[in-house]
Amino acid sequence: MKRNALSELAVDFEETVEKTLETRSAYREINNTNDYFIERDGVHYAGDHLLLELWEAVNLDDPATIEKALLQGAGDAGATVLHSHFHHFSPYGGVSGVVVLAESHISIHTWPEKAYAAIDIFMCGKCDPRDALASIEAMFRPGTMDVQEIRRGVVK
Amino acid sequence: MKRNALSELAVDFEETVEKTLETRSAYREINNTNDYFIERDGVHYAGDHLLLELWEAVNLDDPATIEKALLQGAGDAGATVLHSHFHHFSPYGGVSGVVVLAESHISIHTWPEKAYAAIDIFMCGKCDPRDALASIEAMFRPGTMDVQEIRRGVVK
Repeated sequence: MKRNALSELAVDFEETVEKTLETRSAYREINNTNDYFIERDGVHYAGDHLLLELWEAVNLDDPATIEKALLQGAGDAGATVLHSHFHHFSPYGGVSGVVVLAESHISIHTWPEKAYAAIDIFMCGKCDPRDALASIEAMFRPGTMDVQEIRRGVVK
Repeated sequence: MKRNALSELAVDFEETVEKTLETRSAYREINNTNDYFIERDGVHYAGDHLLLELWEAVNLDDPATIEKALLQGAGDAGATVLHSHFHHFSPYGGVSGVVVLAESHISIHTWPEKAYAAIDIFMCGKCDPRDALASIEAMFRPGTMDVQEIRRGVVK
């Protein structure tokens, strides 16, 4: 690993934890009596998690348009957005971000210099993460997009 | 889906997007010239993503201790924490949270009433997500913990 400005972030770990937790006066309480576990094809489980691998993709270096695409995807799937947070790395322009949903989350990490992005869409309950794919494909126009589907929380 | 207080959150989608984006005056820029792609066993790829399924687990309803365990796991793996955000659901006490790392992310969604949690640990570069497992097992003491390992960004 090359030494660079990132090392400035690598402050003492205990200090990071203390700083993070002391600014947390209270956790946001959300009233939610939904079960979210679902039954599909005779399987009782928490939800579907899609792992996307996008190659030869575009628009990977613009956090504003990326955030908008993911929020649009969340909305298309009928999910409820609780929080959204994005970082922009320089000089290559990579973006890391996450949208926390009442139904789980969407995350993205991009490498514009490789035209690659790793995106996760994990949605529980009645939301279908596949409904978020259209806005993602429209935004990033990948040459190839592999989608791996994993069922989470399968009750045995 | 039962109608409950969650519906109060389900405001008009466009309004949510507008509100989220208008509060974003600027995205945090982080100088980072690391490549993060790695070579292991002759495979060139972005990083390892662990999907954990914890059952018969404890301490699933306390966001402060959960956040501390995940930050500890990130530190144990030598990762750099950029952002951390957690929600607490009532009345069942479920927790949803994410820790955004310079090396990708850790996420958690818990269902205390089912003693179940879905945790993701995705780390790129030289960080090994397996190094984060000890603090997670110590905190949640699961009866069973399935770990699925997925390589992300495999260059073909």
